[in-house]
Amino acid sequence: MTSKRPIRLGMVGGGNDAFIGAVHRIAARIDGEYDLVAGALSSTPEKAQASGAALGLAPDRTYDDFKSMAIREAKLKQGIEAVAIVTPNHMHAPVAQEFLKRGIHVICDKPLTSTLADARKLVKTAENSEALFVLTHNYTGYPMIRQAREMVASGKLGEIRVVQAEYPQDWLTEAEEAKDNKQAEWRTDPARSGAGGCVGDIGTHAYNLLSFVTGLETESLAADLQSFVPGRHLDDNVHVMLRFKGGARGMLWSSQVAPGNENALKLRVYGSKGGIEWAQEDPNYLTYTPFGEPKRLLTRGGTGADEVANRLTRTPGGHPEGYLEAFANIYSEAAVAIRAQSAGEPLPAEVQFPTIQDGLSGVQFIDACVKSSQRDAAWVKLG
Amino acid sequence: MTSKRPIRLGMVGGGNDAFIGAVHRIAARIDGEYDLVAGALSSTPEKAQASGAALGLAPDRTYDDFKSMAIREAKLKQGIEAVAIVTPNHMHAPVAQEFLKRGIHVICDKPLTSTLADARKLVKTAENSEALFVLTHNYTGYPMIRQAREMVASGKLGEIRVVQAEYPQDWLTEAEEAKDNKQAEWRTDPARSGAGGCVGDIGTHAYNLLSFVTGLETESLAADLQSFVPGRHLDDNVHVMLRFKGGARGMLWSSQVAPGNENALKLRVYGSKGGIEWAQEDPNYLTYTPFGEPKRLLTRGGTGADEVANRLTRTPGGHPEGYLEAFANIYSEAAVAIRAQSAGEPLPAEVQFPTIQDGLSGVQFIDACVKSSQRDAAWVKLG
Amino acid sequence: MTSKRPIRLGMVGGGNDAFIGAVHRIAARIDGEYDLVAGALSSTPEKAQASGAALGLAPDRTYDDFKSMAIREAKLKQGIEAVAIVTPNHMHAPVAQEFLKRGIHVICDKPLTSTLADARKLVKTAENSEALFVLTHNYTGYPMIRQAREMVASGKLGEIRVVQAEYPQDWLTEAEEAKDNKQAEWRTDPARSGAGGCVGDIGTHAYNLLSFVTGLETESLAADLQSFVPGRHLDDNVHVMLRFKGGARGMLWSSQVAPGNENALKLRVYGSKGGIEWAQEDPNYLTYTPFGEPKRLLTRGGTGADEVANRLTRTPGGHPEGYLEAFANIYSEAAVAIRAQSAGEPLPAEVQFPTIQDGLSGVQFIDACVKSSQRDAAWVKLG
Amino acid sequence: MTSKRPIRLGMVGGGNDAFIGAVHRIAARIDGEYDLVAGALSSTPEKAQASGAALGLAPDRTYDDFKSMAIREAKLKQGIEAVAIVTPNHMHAPVAQEFLKRGIHVICDKPLTSTLADARKLVKTAENSEALFVLTHNYTGYPMIRQAREMVASGKLGEIRVVQAEYPQDWLTEAEEAKDNKQAEWRTDPARSGAGGCVGDIGTHAYNLLSFVTGLETESLAADLQSFVPGRHLDDNVHVMLRFKGGARGMLWSSQVAPGNENALKLRVYGSKGGIEWAQEDPNYLTYTPFGEPKRLLTRGGTGADEVANRLTRTPGGHPEGYLEAFANIYSEAAVAIRAQSAGEPLPAEVQFPTIQDGLSGVQFIDACVKSSQRDAAWVKLG
Repeated sequence: MTSKRPIRLGMVGGGNDAFIGAVHRIAARIDGEYDLVAGALSSTPEKAQASGAALGLAPDRTYDDFKSMAIREAKLKQGIEAVAIVTPNHMHAPVAQEFLKRGIHVICDKPLTSTLADARKLVKTAENSEALFVLTHNYTGYPMIRQAREMVASGKLGEIRVVQAEYPQDWLTEAEEAKDNKQAEWRTDPARSGAGGCVGDIGTHAYNLLSFVTGLETESLAADLQSFVPGRHLDDNVHVMLRFKGGARGMLWSSQVAPGNENALKLRVYGSKGGIEWAQEDPNYLTYTPFGEPKRLLTRGGTGADEVANRLTRTPGGHPEGYLEAFANIYSEAAVAIRAQSAGEPLPAEVQFPTIQDGLSGVQFIDACVKSSQRDAAWVKLG
Repeated sequence: MTSKRPIRLGMVGGGNDAFIGAVHRIAARIDGEYDLVAGALSSTPEKAQASGAALGLAPDRTYDDFKSMAIREAKLKQGIEAVAIVTPNHMHAPVAQEFLKRGIHVICDKPLTSTLADARKLVKTAENSEALFVLTHNYTGYPMIRQAREMVASGKLGEIRVVQAEYPQDWLTEAEEAKDNKQAEWRTDPARSGAGGCVGDIGTHAYNLLSFVTGLETESLAADLQSFVPGRHLDDNVHVMLRFKGGARGMLWSSQVAPGNENALKLRVYGSKGGIEWAQEDPNYLTYTPFGEPKRLLTRGGTGADEVANRLTRTPGGHPEGYLEAFANIYSEAAVAIRAQSAGEPLPAEVQFPTIQDGLSGVQFIDACVKSSQRDAAWVKLG
Repeated sequence: MTSKRPIRLGMVGGGNDAFIGAVHRIAARIDGEYDLVAGALSSTPEKAQASGAALGLAPDRTYDDFKSMAIREAKLKQGIEAVAIVTPNHMHAPVAQEFLKRGIHVICDKPLTSTLADARKLVKTAENSEALFVLTHNYTGYPMIRQAREMVASGKLGEIRVVQAEYPQDWLTEAEEAKDNKQAEWRTDPARSGAGGCVGDIGTHAYNLLSFVTGLETESLAADLQSFVPGRHLDDNVHVMLRFKGGARGMLWSSQVAPGNENALKLRVYGSKGGIEWAQEDPNYLTYTPFGEPKRLLTRGGTGADEVANRLTRTPGGHPEGYLEAFANIYSEAAVAIRAQSAGEPLPAEVQFPTIQDGLSGVQFIDACVKSSQRDAAWVKLG
Repeated sequence: MTSKRPIRLGMVGGGNDAFIGAVHRIAARIDGEYDLVAGALSSTPEKAQASGAALGLAPDRTYDDFKSMAIREAKLKQGIEAVAIVTPNHMHAPVAQEFLKRGIHVICDKPLTSTLADARKLVKTAENSEALFVLTHNYTGYPMIRQAREMVASGKLGEIRVVQAEYPQDWLTEAEEAKDNKQAEWRTDPARSGAGGCVGDIGTHAYNLLSFVTGLETESLAADLQSFVPGRHLDDNVHVMLRFKGGARGMLWSSQVAPGNENALKLRVYGSKGGIEWAQEDPNYLTYTPFGEPKRLLTRGGTGADEVANRLTRTPGGHPEGYLEAFANIYSEAAVAIRAQSAGEPLPAEVQFPTIQDGLSGVQFIDACVKSSQRDAAWVKLG
């Protein structure tokens, strides 16, 4: 918590029944850095109103559509300073445009957009705006992921050779989209999700995570996408081989049809001097093996954690933090950035959050995977 | 989050540098149920003022002492409705007295008091007050602990026979109290902690947890307390054998000198039909073995979780929740109770939180352990 | 394997259907150190003959009773050099007597005897015999247990303060002894097992292991034994508090009514400088935490394993060894001792196996537990 | 153990210092099914003699070369019935030829040969011989792997969709081959290993295992092989995407440069109805998730183990078996086959061991991986 005035936050999407909207609201609240004061919470006016009321928003700041909201809030003296965008993917770009061009900071869910063209356009808008753009690749907010990144950057693993990233789930093992499951419906609908299904929904998380931790740039990839469930319009299983600039190699697997997996995001990085392994479902641990020595279990808040992890840590070792705290770290890093910008000060060097460039990389990854798969898993260059 | 007006909360103790105060504040904030509006945050006036300012409290609601705070807040039209007490143990009773007698709800850290006499007096005060008393035995807020309790209550484990509870830590392996560590200082000081050291600080957590999950009443116990670190005034390692009414038996180990343990609270319960095992450091899992069948891994938010766990769950399976969310569950359960009482409505049956009776049981446990140990681990009856 | 001639081995007990006899035979065979050439495999002559034939023993070396076997084998030019005793507990003493007094080495299952009087008598016999006495407390044969012992002995953990030992099983959760289960029958029968049930069958394993690893001598213990299953004549759950000479303290839990536990023997040792943890079901790992540093995972055959572990290791790290290999290590250590003795050479310092003194300690432990429990868990001195 | 006469076994390769020869000898010995009576243990005559003497072989059955051994043993009345071939890969074919054509059963280490041409020739020889050919893809001997295979075959997982196989090690992270490490030398030498390095040494194990468990036939694969260590002549990291007949997809990763991995072979199989996961380093467990239900932990010897697993099990649940027992299972299955053939009886249906056809598949896999990698990871058909 801080003695500073909370930042005024609006939200687009995230009405009743939406999963990720509630997550963003808790994340914004944990450190007391934001006040949610306005929202266009649904594309259906009645649902928008009902959701606003349920959240205790003032009626005159509960909007029926995001454009009205952007216009009015930009004019209000105490209008929102930042907006959280938690709509289905295809709406990220049009919504973000409206707020960015009015100087309102954007905190946007991933993937950045549903098409590469949209992503490129949005990058330009962002470059011409003074507003910040924060992408909630929330897994980068885990303290032990920060530690992992630092260990790679400082050379503890030597030259990185092999990266294994995976993100299996099982919730789409059957045709949930045919069972009136809203989450499944839009995530398997090309019109709302884009050309990537599983690859866009969670493959991009795994890709972002490996990029964040290793700092490696992808040169090219070969992808084999598959849709196993009959009638499904988008991929539900993703196999990718990666070649990085400088010679490192990687594999990435994401799946939504792997029974027994909930959100089993896992990252393993191996270099000439050591290896690290991290699993999202047990995020307070990071194993580290200096080559030729026993494996060590580094714990968040514990003796092996460095300053980069500790500054995003709220509880001592052995009192586990989880998904919401990691998500809150993104929001709180964003708050530091927003306050720094308001104050005309430079962003402190240790503050990190996924940017619109990371968003563009993610959409390029999705696009390359889809293209490669269409070409029988031929190598496709990125960027 | 709720559309209802947040409850006005005050805090006694928890100034700068205090660990548990910050935890209570986040817990109060996660679900948006409370607004922290007043505080007597330190027994040192300057620190109280500085801490209030750092938290953004209004200067006129930043008090130098808890009694002034109780008197004035009780008179204010928009005075606090509840107070969180996060002082060292010996102050719980005097502080709670002041607020309870003025009808302000109390949310108090554990153990209830530093002496059994204080605990008994406080129970009487609470019985004569209309205010609620909530004890933050926070581990009972973990969803999978609720599930465990429900499984025992519904007979899934059959008749309970054996209970193994343990809570080892390692942070007092050396004489931290001699190294200007405030946390270590008061926790090893009989004047502030009471007659129990490790047994009061964490043994009581393990004891509360086993009682909460199994519903067993302790008949008698035999305890062997030890202080291993030279110069330490209170126990730092606790061995207890337990006999429960009805014939079940248990063991409890708590330690602060067990290198390699952070907050390794663990509970195992075995009955005539099955067994369950839970570990606080990996709290999203509960293993369950129906006798004669393979072990099952039940996960919070997952397929094996029941309604009692799900109602205290914010994120889907595989997106881990942790210590702060469990703590927040105690606060949010308390909020339901406070609102129900204000509305003159009965408390919904599913709402549960540790009460002053649990607090009394905890102090009786500490007292019995200390007595037993003084008598060479003779059996001592509880209650 | 060795180029040396295998030692000629006989066996008493271990006929068809006996579990532990087969284990001893494999253990004797793994390193090629023994040839099984004679046996009195059952107290029932027909079963003895049938079992001998099934094992391919020569008819004239398949005996109907152990005494005839001892007499004749002692006279044969190529008679057995060692005998494995794998009968129920109450027969260990009479059988061992016969072989020891004829100079035949004894490799005997645990516990040493079913009464303390028998144990003391047997110790005398052994002292007057030139034959070796090896007790198969097989868990001491695990390489990582050797490593643990060495780490304690060399001071890596500092002064030992706390020991936690446990050995829960679940196979007697119901009244197996009433279901024609031979293993359950004799193990719950005081006439064949002795006064201890679970405490003698597996509690003594846990006790031996903690003694072996820590080198601590027990001063006194307080035990609470319970028989949970209706109609059972011996304890099936054991709670013990231990006080060691020099001030360390311990707890020991063994149970045969803990659903979900197969052979979950576990040892944890904590000292002023560090802690170690080992679990029999995953025996290739030993975790080690130097106080103030991250936990390390030492693996059998891996980078953290010392010479004491490596000399009992057959496969590289990551190729797991198990129960039979540990058991074989006892046999192979015994073989070294037998050969050294035959050659009139001293036993190499690094060779270790449980002796008759360890057996006596085990029976003293059982006896003390039973006595303490009868006296309402009063402290009972050992030895 | 069996009352039947042990099978007379010879060995080619496996002299002093060789790792895998000692493993084969223990495996042959554990169940008492074989007697090692002859050997050509090294290509260097002096080493061959010294190794034979160390193993206690008769001097006249310690041969300087495998051909003399095949010729003479075939003529002896009590000559060997089977030979274990544990040489470097390039010698498998010439050695096997000599014994097969003389009717001596062959138990050969993997991969079958160092070239595809050799493999095809050897298959023909085997087809024209009455002798059996057993390939020691030893991991298929693990009981829980048998259980996994049965679960797939019986439809418990539904239609198989996704297979993830991996086998990372770390022992070649540095240039061991330049440090006078014999094991590293021949394994990184194309002349002795063949065109595949890591892919032939361990990739083929992972491939065999996934084929054995799933029964899937590979249609095509795309492989990206890399040699990370400067100066190394063969691949040390292998990425493969697999397409199976019928539509399932897989990924395979094997590496010898992944610090922190010893022999971390792991198999995960996902179908329309459930998923299973198994790890070689903890081989007594198999997790099984029926879709929509909690994960179950099946244990070797435990309540969830089926007859297919139990028949290859020696110890009860919780008394772990390991690598050597699994290896022994291959030898003991082979013994059943050899005895059945000698007796002119059909092989019992439940007996399974890797055959020369599996060996051919393995070499085809290696060949396809090498070719695909040379063609920039183009899809290559198998077979």
